Amino acid sequence: MTVQGRSDGQAGRIRLGMVGGGEGAFIGAVHRIASRIDDHFTLVAGALSSTPEKAHASARALGLDDQRSYGSYEDMVRGEAARPDGVEAVAIVTPNHMHFPVAKTCLEAGFHVICDKPMTVTLQEAKALAEIAAASGRVFVLTHNYTGYPMIRQARAMVARGDLGTIRVVIAEYAQDWLAARAEDAGSKQASWRVDPAKAGAGGAIGDIGTHAHNLACYVTGARVAALSADLTSFVNGRVLDDNASMLLRFDNGAKGMLWASQVAVGNENGLTLRVYGDKGGLEWSQEEPNRLWYTPLGEPKRLLTRNGAGADSAAIAVARVPAGHPEGYLEGFATIYMEAAELIRAARDGRSPADGIALPTIAEGLAGLAFIEACIASSKADGAWVRLEA
Amino acid sequence: MTVQGRSDGQAGRIRLGMVGGGEGAFIGAVHRIASRIDDHFTLVAGALSSTPEKAHASARALGLDDQRSYGSYEDMVRGEAARPDGVEAVAIVTPNHMHFPVAKTCLEAGFHVICDKPMTVTLQEAKALAEIAAASGRVFVLTHNYTGYPMIRQARAMVARGDLGTIRVVIAEYAQDWLAARAEDAGSKQASWRVDPAKAGAGGAIGDIGTHAHNLACYVTGARVAALSADLTSFVNGRVLDDNASMLLRFDNGAKGMLWASQVAVGNENGLTLRVYGDKGGLEWSQEEPNRLWYTPLGEPKRLLTRNGAGADSAAIAVARVPAGHPEGYLEGFATIYMEAAELIRAARDGRSPADGIALPTIAEGLAGLAFIEACIASSKADGAWVRLEA
Amino acid sequence: MTVQGRSDGQAGRIRLGMVGGGEGAFIGAVHRIASRIDDHFTLVAGALSSTPEKAHASARALGLDDQRSYGSYEDMVRGEAARPDGVEAVAIVTPNHMHFPVAKTCLEAGFHVICDKPMTVTLQEAKALAEIAAASGRVFVLTHNYTGYPMIRQARAMVARGDLGTIRVVIAEYAQDWLAARAEDAGSKQASWRVDPAKAGAGGAIGDIGTHAHNLACYVTGARVAALSADLTSFVNGRVLDDNASMLLRFDNGAKGMLWASQVAVGNENGLTLRVYGDKGGLEWSQEEPNRLWYTPLGEPKRLLTRNGAGADSAAIAVARVPAGHPEGYLEGFATIYMEAAELIRAARDGRSPADGIALPTIAEGLAGLAFIEACIASSKADGAWVRLEA
Amino acid sequence: MTVQGRSDGQAGRIRLGMVGGGEGAFIGAVHRIASRIDDHFTLVAGALSSTPEKAHASARALGLDDQRSYGSYEDMVRGEAARPDGVEAVAIVTPNHMHFPVAKTCLEAGFHVICDKPMTVTLQEAKALAEIAAASGRVFVLTHNYTGYPMIRQARAMVARGDLGTIRVVIAEYAQDWLAARAEDAGSKQASWRVDPAKAGAGGAIGDIGTHAHNLACYVTGARVAALSADLTSFVNGRVLDDNASMLLRFDNGAKGMLWASQVAVGNENGLTLRVYGDKGGLEWSQEEPNRLWYTPLGEPKRLLTRNGAGADSAAIAVARVPAGHPEGYLEGFATIYMEAAELIRAARDGRSPADGIALPTIAEGLAGLAFIEACIASSKADGAWVRLEA
Repeated sequence: MTVQGRSDGQAGRIRLGMVGGGEGAFIGAVHRIASRIDDHFTLVAGALSSTPEKAHASARALGLDDQRSYGSYEDMVRGEAARPDGVEAVAIVTPNHMHFPVAKTCLEAGFHVICDKPMTVTLQEAKALAEIAAASGRVFVLTHNYTGYPMIRQARAMVARGDLGTIRVVIAEYAQDWLAARAEDAGSKQASWRVDPAKAGAGGAIGDIGTHAHNLACYVTGARVAALSADLTSFVNGRVLDDNASMLLRFDNGAKGMLWASQVAVGNENGLTLRVYGDKGGLEWSQEEPNRLWYTPLGEPKRLLTRNGAGADSAAIAVARVPAGHPEGYLEGFATIYMEAAELIRAARDGRSPADGIALPTIAEGLAGLAFIEACIASSKADGAWVRLEA
Repeated sequence: MTVQGRSDGQAGRIRLGMVGGGEGAFIGAVHRIASRIDDHFTLVAGALSSTPEKAHASARALGLDDQRSYGSYEDMVRGEAARPDGVEAVAIVTPNHMHFPVAKTCLEAGFHVICDKPMTVTLQEAKALAEIAAASGRVFVLTHNYTGYPMIRQARAMVARGDLGTIRVVIAEYAQDWLAARAEDAGSKQASWRVDPAKAGAGGAIGDIGTHAHNLACYVTGARVAALSADLTSFVNGRVLDDNASMLLRFDNGAKGMLWASQVAVGNENGLTLRVYGDKGGLEWSQEEPNRLWYTPLGEPKRLLTRNGAGADSAAIAVARVPAGHPEGYLEGFATIYMEAAELIRAARDGRSPADGIALPTIAEGLAGLAFIEACIASSKADGAWVRLEA
Repeated sequence: MTVQGRSDGQAGRIRLGMVGGGEGAFIGAVHRIASRIDDHFTLVAGALSSTPEKAHASARALGLDDQRSYGSYEDMVRGEAARPDGVEAVAIVTPNHMHFPVAKTCLEAGFHVICDKPMTVTLQEAKALAEIAAASGRVFVLTHNYTGYPMIRQARAMVARGDLGTIRVVIAEYAQDWLAARAEDAGSKQASWRVDPAKAGAGGAIGDIGTHAHNLACYVTGARVAALSADLTSFVNGRVLDDNASMLLRFDNGAKGMLWASQVAVGNENGLTLRVYGDKGGLEWSQEEPNRLWYTPLGEPKRLLTRNGAGADSAAIAVARVPAGHPEGYLEGFATIYMEAAELIRAARDGRSPADGIALPTIAEGLAGLAFIEACIASSKADGAWVRLEA
Repeated sequence: MTVQGRSDGQAGRIRLGMVGGGEGAFIGAVHRIASRIDDHFTLVAGALSSTPEKAHASARALGLDDQRSYGSYEDMVRGEAARPDGVEAVAIVTPNHMHFPVAKTCLEAGFHVICDKPMTVTLQEAKALAEIAAASGRVFVLTHNYTGYPMIRQARAMVARGDLGTIRVVIAEYAQDWLAARAEDAGSKQASWRVDPAKAGAGGAIGDIGTHAHNLACYVTGARVAALSADLTSFVNGRVLDDNASMLLRFDNGAKGMLWASQVAVGNENGLTLRVYGDKGGLEWSQEEPNRLWYTPLGEPKRLLTRNGAGADSAAIAVARVPAGHPEGYLEGFATIYMEAAELIRAARDGRSPADGIALPTIAEGLAGLAFIEACIASSKADGAWVRLEA
């Protein structure tokens, strides 16, 4: 069994607050586990629900100090700012429409922010937040968590060093089936807000999962989607937002692409995949088997690259925890974002430059995500006309 | 070992001639093997190359009677028509531009025709051929061979009987990499004519392989592509025809789709795949593992259906030769087209109706293929404008 | 589409007779298709069943000349020997117990023999047949058909040239489930004779499928099983012969191995797999995906070698028919045995040496197979004591 | 996105100490992450290395209080026992030979113990420890971590409720390649102690990984290995302990089995697999794709069961954290052992019965593991004679 070099934990854990993530939430629990895995954070405060009673019950279940369980995010920001041992960073895990006001308030109060995606519900809000974040000097992290997978880091490094040559074709997919029928009628809290434009924003599948596929395509290739032509559909009766989106992409480096996001593709649980083809090689990756990356150099046999296996790149090794063959999963990938966030926050705390190699998503990716959503909607309304995305 | 019910061979093999398929050709040898597998045909004549010397050398290598080796297809048609034991059917396996003149000549001389795809190089030719075929009363078979795979028959039967409910999304892909570099410079005869518009027609990847993906999507779903929006690219330097094509599809039954055809996707050998999603279930199939079909009924675990395995439909069993777990491949799928062609030809010979269940591609599929190619080109020239396909 | 160099067919097809393989048989139809694929044989005579009436009906269905349909194999041998255009070779596709008498009669009458496996029902018979074959000077081919798969040829070539270094471990499996319940009660002719010691011989699963796994392990590694320790079980009520066999192997080159043959492993259709590990590399192959071979050089990423793909060895290319990505299957692998048999028979006919590279199984493999079966039974009776196999 | 019901964290984290697991160790870091994931433990003390200097450096790197970093496990037990806020439980992550003395000391001092496997280095020690543990009344947990995978819980539940009927065949494998060459010469601390009988005990591959395969086979089937016949080999030059082990198994319920453990199987990273076949169905699972379980009911298509997917059993859901399609891995499976340990410890603390469904490995599994190792060695020394394991 080979041994990994990186150690867990460090003295001086970062004090973390959380907004959202109370009982029945999905992503809040994920953020909490992710924050603990590498032992850089300690959750000390929360405004865990927009319903104060539920917020407090959730806080008690998590063992938070009653004094630091708040009924609203405004109270939390006020309360924590007043404490000498107040939180340093806030994780925002609310439905989408609350990302902007909470992030704004936190940044302006001097807290670092770790925010779920999409960053906001409109591009206009995203731009406003970008300015607020820049002015604040605080760390802003966007949890496009799939960028934390080691084999995604490997793919990105391989493209960057030219293993694939000039990129020609990028195929990104994110297929699920949990909204194939009306889950929103079956009492799924997750479904309910995601199909409600008032909470989710103007994008359905494109906002919830299409943004991940778009982000990953750009993250790995280092290219930007310059224009897209989209066809959005709401298949399920009574649904306002898209539950299936297909589109053609043109990248700023001349590559062509396709992106498919669907929540009605029966038989797909969480089918995020990325395929990238250049003139010297090809890469293929699937989120459901995240420890594997298929690499074909032009004219040679296909190779199976594995996390921490033979041929692993230093960028992948840096974010892996256990030896090859011992699968890491979704939570570990998510934890990598928290691990890198910790380094940025500590560097800010200590007034030093962060370590090399940090590659987490931040404001730029948040802006790109909203530009993507709005372009999708505009193109689809214009019957698939090509819409350019702002650089 | 379970036993299959169908027997090979029958008295009275059909006398077959071939045009094209001389030395160095790929698809001619495939047709010959396919014609032999189930023992319904005997190859007795050929005009195997447009170069008479090469035609005769090829004929000798195959053991054809010298008297029935011809230097041109016109000679063959004339010579065979004059013999009491002349060929009954002709297999056309030339480059695309010769399909029309050879098929026309054969049909008009009273021969049945088994023609490789695409049927012709223009939609106009295709329409003319449709009229000629109708007038001739002869059998016309188009070897969209992938329709011969048992699990494709299974998928088609499942959609037809409603296992998937209303079809919502269709994703078809055909990815290869053999043209990722300039194979046409490396002495590949196959590459040379396929990248030459004078021989291949106006479509590159869309004509050569995109038509297969289009055909399969329609064949399985029973739906027609009503409109498409395409983006064709020639990535390899100096190439005139497309080597990568991506497009959005709208089907006449309301389903949405995507189709990707590429010959530059490094790491893909012959990656024809089809995924179909309805409101009651989903199906996924890949040509490189043709004996498997993945089926997910809504809300249930994914199931692996296999050729001749548990759950096999009678439409699939009818075209399978060996028990489950004994892989059949490309040649057997191709042979199924020949097996069904034999039944049509014998029925015509005997003046009876053919057996039920014959489901091979013919003129209609050829027309649809050319309409598809021309729509792709028109849409791509119009920057991806939606182009309707004639019904 | 790359083109394969090998052409089908040749003038002067070999005249073939068949014993067994009438209606309801499995392997007879397989032999017939296999004999046709590469167009080296023409079936002209048969004694297709031990029941004359059924023999003749089967012959008529196949289009055989009535004069050459025989009611018994003795009649066929007599009749064909008397004809100037009599058969040159005989395919024996009866239940196991008839292999010896039919093969003996055919060889002694001067016919070449292509015989299904196991070669005989006892080692003693096998030795007798070996002498008869040697004395006859005729070609004797044993259809251990899985040796015909291109990737098995590739694996064998890689071991032979040292890609794996010294072989340490060999894991061979052949798992099926078609006898998990009492198929012999359900009217399966295949099941009935295979569970009957009078027809199948002393081995159940070990004879029917274990011999294939044993053969393949030796064929690929070039090593011999020197000793084995076996545990045979009859799980299904009322069954006399083993339906599950597990054993430890010791090879003559110092390698250790395991072999598992089961016909009660629910979920396995035809799960023949082979894994070979040396000090420089490892190979893994599965019959249900025969076009793929996984190769891991020590300390490097795993590679996917494909039939006719990048990295294909000349020994594999020589027996492949269609380009990479176009699956070949069970029938093509079987056909390769016939193709090589044709070359041996023609060489014998012409008094010349056969072409290089012929690697089909013959008497030696038949002897090894019976030695294997008898050792399995002896070891199991001795509670797993190690039993040495004769060299 | 469906939501999981289980919440992380609880008030009153359990105070944990650790023995072993200093810098350069593998399994210590794994235990620490596993203890944090569900937030039931807080690491407050450690004797992290047998070298005091290294122990203290490791403790500082982890942020432990200097007062609670100890130079020896004896000091830690003494020091913590004297504190009102001393540790409640101790994780033992040393090389194997130290498990017994440390566990004994901890249990006798009244601490609960979470111990890595194998439990001890001899069966005699294991029996002694069993008595000590029983006398102590403390919780003893053995981290056969693979039992924590949700799909292993699913498999166990399915066997228990009869989905597979009577179990006939069990095939367990654990194949790795990290010791295929002399890793012990290349400075791998992990390799060094594992090939040293003084530290690892008498078993090499069988102790390190074979025990996991044995444990899993018994855990899932609910059966006991009654007897085995083993062949152990040391392939790598100069190695004393086995690096490859193959064996036949007989279970107390009449099932037959095979087990293969190898650390020289080039191309296998951490290939722990389990296949179980009964008269009503079969199950197949692979540790490298832990979120998937293949289930074939007799006579029906194979089904893919997924963690938290359709068909998930309550026993699997209870130990899953994120929705289907979001992979959980090795660390989460390990964390499940800690989660269940926490419940046992809290129940002991509170004098109540633990919640239903706890299914972690403990003393009984430790005894079985040592009995297995000693039987393997005895059998191999006796040239594969069947050796019975004590019940």
